[in-house]
Amino acid sequence: MEHPENDRQYKGLVVNEGVENLPQVNPYATFRRKKRQLSIADYVDGILQGNITILGQAVTLVESNLPEDQAIAQKVIEQCLPYSGNSIRLGITGVPGAGKSTFIEALGTELCQQGKHLAVLAIDPSSERSKGSILGDKTRMNELSVQANAFIRPSPSAGSLGGVARKTRETIVLCEAAGFDTIFVETVGVGQSETAAHSMVDFFLLLQVTGTGDELQGIKRGIMEMADGIAINKCDGSNVERAQAAKVSFKNALALFPPSESGWKPYAETCSAVEKTGIKEVWKMVEDYISFAQKNGYLDYRRNQQAKYWMYETINSALLSGFYQNEKMEPLIQDMENRVLNNEISSFIAAHQLLDVYNKQ
Amino acid sequence: MEHPENDRQYKGLVVNEGVENLPQVNPYATFRRKKRQLSIADYVDGILQGNITILGQAVTLVESNLPEDQAIAQKVIEQCLPYSGNSIRLGITGVPGAGKSTFIEALGTELCQQGKHLAVLAIDPSSERSKGSILGDKTRMNELSVQANAFIRPSPSAGSLGGVARKTRETIVLCEAAGFDTIFVETVGVGQSETAAHSMVDFFLLLQVTGTGDELQGIKRGIMEMADGIAINKCDGSNVERAQAAKVSFKNALALFPPSESGWKPYAETCSAVEKTGIKEVWKMVEDYISFAQKNGYLDYRRNQQAKYWMYETINSALLSGFYQNEKMEPLIQDMENRVLNNEISSFIAAHQLLDVYNKQ
Repeated sequence: MEHPENDRQYKGLVVNEGVENLPQVNPYATFRRKKRQLSIADYVDGILQGNITILGQAVTLVESNLPEDQAIAQKVIEQCLPYSGNSIRLGITGVPGAGKSTFIEALGTELCQQGKHLAVLAIDPSSERSKGSILGDKTRMNELSVQANAFIRPSPSAGSLGGVARKTRETIVLCEAAGFDTIFVETVGVGQSETAAHSMVDFFLLLQVTGTGDELQGIKRGIMEMADGIAINKCDGSNVERAQAAKVSFKNALALFPPSESGWKPYAETCSAVEKTGIKEVWKMVEDYISFAQKNGYLDYRRNQQAKYWMYETINSALLSGFYQNEKMEPLIQDMENRVLNNEISSFIAAHQLLDVYNKQ
Repeated sequence: MEHPENDRQYKGLVVNEGVENLPQVNPYATFRRKKRQLSIADYVDGILQGNITILGQAVTLVESNLPEDQAIAQKVIEQCLPYSGNSIRLGITGVPGAGKSTFIEALGTELCQQGKHLAVLAIDPSSERSKGSILGDKTRMNELSVQANAFIRPSPSAGSLGGVARKTRETIVLCEAAGFDTIFVETVGVGQSETAAHSMVDFFLLLQVTGTGDELQGIKRGIMEMADGIAINKCDGSNVERAQAAKVSFKNALALFPPSESGWKPYAETCSAVEKTGIKEVWKMVEDYISFAQKNGYLDYRRNQQAKYWMYETINSALLSGFYQNEKMEPLIQDMENRVLNNEISSFIAAHQLLDVYNKQ
């Protein structure tokens, strides 16, 4: 999918997109980089003033894999940290076909019209900018993308889940420091990204369609119990009755779940993103939760747990990738895995033989 | 809780229990160790002949933390591996109060009477032999423990979840090699042990009581979606109607869940472990699943995935514990965590500063 020129109106928000994808040896890259060379203070000041262009440039640094970009990015984040945290962070997940883009467009436009400042981010480790990543199909978000107080940013380009998620989480900090009071984090509902998204949002919304079996295909097990609420989309036309029946079913099902850590009882609302009905009710659910969790202290507790989680998650990823991305280890690991699968060696002996090789390096 | 002498009838099955808890410097320990000094071939032959005394001694080696015991244990496991795998492995979880012990007693006795050879194991990292660990309250299993073809082994004593789970998984190998065709793995349903148990069984059974809110307290979220089936226990006396209503509710709830990876549709059965009703129906559910999953190849696939999982899990634990159990790191980690919680430093910078210290050691 190519980016037509008339897409620039949206892409204006996605400043310098793709710069980090240029080959490092390309002299043009250096030229491009010089053009936007800002100091750390420039970035921080720009962000704190709500300058969207500078915010976009800073996010590009966050997403860059170049060490020199990362060095600047980390300092900018550090200085923005004290100004972050003042937003409602909403995770939105659902399988392809649940109507996520249309739902985000409808809810987002509604919130922008209420005067909120909305940043829409995504976690999709499989995404590549021009290959139909989530939030990549901008034609679906025409209405939202022209809102002056909306900032839409596709998922950082393909990489490890940990890397992609880290970038999204850091982008949240920058967006909050820039004055965005509402953050959406979209995921696709079929992989591991939901745990990552769940670990950076206040409310995790599962977008469903009527629960008649086939529509549930593809969604990952465990997500339903992770959700703080369910929105049953496509409650329109001939589908209204089924959607309302699904709402009752979900209500009964959710009542059987063990109570959530927060004490909040998740429930389901119906909506139609296309007809823009029920959208306010879904948002009311989010707001009710937020005020509930603010009162009982859970909101702060959850954010603290999340901050800890990401510290440990980052440490763990680094420790593991030292092993798994070691060139010498890779063929040995594969060979040992085969021996385990053939029942030639126990999982534990295999593991320890690999560790012995690694530790003797 | 002391072990009364009249408990020996059961403890006869738990050979040399506690030997590994003797202080290493105790000369008596050496004496005791000599008494049971068998060669690797002795252990393997004994196990393959179904000698329960030798099986118990081998499990004690598996559970031992002494390097010399582990060296023998690993070799015994390796030689038993080709003879393992011929069993139905059933995970059983449920909160305290769900009646797990009584259920295991009822189902286990039924299966033993059918001529099956049953090993009952547990994963409970918090357990200490004499402090009310699961399967520790042997008085509840009087009937099962006298069955000639039952082998009951309490959870390996307290330790890290990974360590305890590894020992249980290795014990499964030995039990299967000794001819046990049915393995139960019990967990308590409130912690992390369920994921570990789920990763070593063919069928994961959630034992519930009637779903009226309070009874669900304490069970971990996510477990319901992990279950291959639910048994609603205590369907007896004045509780029958409520239990049957719960069965319908669970049926409806489970239908809303995304289909499991195996294609199997989990459902609920009622039973009364005390009155021994519905027990056969629960077992039929397990057998139906096994034949379903054998036919479509999922059973083999799941066991292969589990073998891989434990290889990688063992590697990962070892890599992480090198960092977290490093004496120099521990205070630094705590300090950094506090700074993260106070928003003084980002989770990612904190992680990388800690990693820098660690890598420079």
